Amino acid sequence: MIMDKLIARISELHNPTVVGLDPRLDMVPGFIRNAAFAAHGNTAAGASEAFYRFNIGLIDAVCDIVPAVKPQVSMYEQYGAAGMDAYIRTIAYAKQKSMLVIGDIKRGDIASTAEAYSDGHIGLVDVNGEKAAVYGTDFITVNPYMGRDCVEPYLRNCKAYDKGLFVLVKTSNKGSGDLQDLIIGDTSKTLYETVGGYVSEMGAAFIGESGYSAIGAVVGATYPEQAAKLRAMMPHTFFLVPGYGAQGGKAEDLAACFDKQGVGAIVNSSRGIIAAYKLDAYKDRFGEADFAEAARQAALDMKADLCKHINA
Amino acid sequence: MIMDKLIARISELHNPTVVGLDPRLDMVPGFIRNAAFAAHGNTAAGASEAFYRFNIGLIDAVCDIVPAVKPQVSMYEQYGAAGMDAYIRTIAYAKQKSMLVIGDIKRGDIASTAEAYSDGHIGLVDVNGEKAAVYGTDFITVNPYMGRDCVEPYLRNCKAYDKGLFVLVKTSNKGSGDLQDLIIGDTSKTLYETVGGYVSEMGAAFIGESGYSAIGAVVGATYPEQAAKLRAMMPHTFFLVPGYGAQGGKAEDLAACFDKQGVGAIVNSSRGIIAAYKLDAYKDRFGEADFAEAARQAALDMKADLCKHINA
Repeated sequence: MIMDKLIARISELHNPTVVGLDPRLDMVPGFIRNAAFAAHGNTAAGASEAFYRFNIGLIDAVCDIVPAVKPQVSMYEQYGAAGMDAYIRTIAYAKQKSMLVIGDIKRGDIASTAEAYSDGHIGLVDVNGEKAAVYGTDFITVNPYMGRDCVEPYLRNCKAYDKGLFVLVKTSNKGSGDLQDLIIGDTSKTLYETVGGYVSEMGAAFIGESGYSAIGAVVGATYPEQAAKLRAMMPHTFFLVPGYGAQGGKAEDLAACFDKQGVGAIVNSSRGIIAAYKLDAYKDRFGEADFAEAARQAALDMKADLCKHINA
Repeated sequence: MIMDKLIARISELHNPTVVGLDPRLDMVPGFIRNAAFAAHGNTAAGASEAFYRFNIGLIDAVCDIVPAVKPQVSMYEQYGAAGMDAYIRTIAYAKQKSMLVIGDIKRGDIASTAEAYSDGHIGLVDVNGEKAAVYGTDFITVNPYMGRDCVEPYLRNCKAYDKGLFVLVKTSNKGSGDLQDLIIGDTSKTLYETVGGYVSEMGAAFIGESGYSAIGAVVGATYPEQAAKLRAMMPHTFFLVPGYGAQGGKAEDLAACFDKQGVGAIVNSSRGIIAAYKLDAYKDRFGEADFAEAARQAALDMKADLCKHINA
């Protein structure tokens, strides 16, 4: 089962981290950008190729120390068809290098619309009566605002093709409380706890040998109190935790996301790893040409930082 | 201003409807499917080409009687890069035929991620220091679950490039109440009303000559009571109304979404128009080869049905 696989790989590498592949052109080293735009002109295809080449370097640099990558589809989608092609090729390359892949797509829609997202990203699509895999991600993120029937269409493919979800529950951003922290009726429960309850319920049929379900939750590193509440109420739900590093989440706060055995969550870092060569902490040691080595060092430093606080 | 333009076009055509371009292969006439798969093999490119050719026929058939189309990106996205190319070409073709285009993307994410969606879909992206338009939609739909800071990044492009949004407030699906109808704290206000309040606030700076803001709301046809509440509390917010026809929303229920002048909303129909030739009401009169004429007739019938109940 896919969540068992992720947990086993985390344990094998002693590293509960996922590298967010959220490239922006200003993060991509000049020599990669120049080559890509020279080959494709100043076009969306050029930008997409720059992202792909950047990702290849990053994946090569971390695939033996980090269990998973999380490409953020928006960064690719903004460049249209060429961007989606780079997204798909990035997923394929990471899988070839034995990494698990979480597609950060945050889709949320209903009925046949959700089925189309589900078939494309974690299932098979119909091509004139034959079936074809398109994106091939292991996990995707899903937005629950439209209700339980916007999550259910994904469960069928999770079961059929051994895939997993991370449903947005309590996100890491500053405004996440605008809706998610609202108290519901005369209960003392917030909206995010209500959603957490739905996620637990839907995940109950997907619990693997690890004790965790293939249906996980997104829980931000920036809200440790809320994370602790959710950890207690969702013992079988694995957390994808954004917000570490650049967004202000600290390793000591992350312990709340893990269980007593040091299992239960995977922590994302994007900019802090993929653009490490531009950060004060690394830029004296690593130049543009060493962006991949800088990413590897930053990933090792993140692992050490997490392991100090979590029994991973 | 874009919402003024949409309202003017609705008024000119006396038709507050938008045709949802949500193709599925089983809706596409055999002769189009066969030609597309013959040219591209049984591939995602074949399916995408079939959708595009189908859309061309539909747009040609309704562009002089319907003000807008709403392609549902999931249907194209499931076919990867080729699908996104068909989505983009569909948008371009509809605009060439003077239709307004609402990209039904329901994206919801934060900070630089939301900016990437915004730049791609309603703004300009960076290609090596130059700027390029990619999707070129007039409006997009947006999911608010992550908070106000997941909607704000779109406002900049709405202002800069005269674009509009429809934020999900009360959706048409059966499970929409799971979260949206929850009562907040000791107020008597639901979550959807809270979101409605945010949308009004954010839209206040975007009100045009029509009295309506460029920042609209998605309000389902299937919940007329809730729609009436929202109409009253959001006098400057234009509604995009899904759920008519196939989903069970009736024209008499839709009156709640409109103001006293018969303005204030645009009603979507997808299957009921684009696959009309397969419906009992039309299949005796129209064969597969007449799918476009059937769509035109269904669009005229929908217009007549709406106009009976709304002063449009």
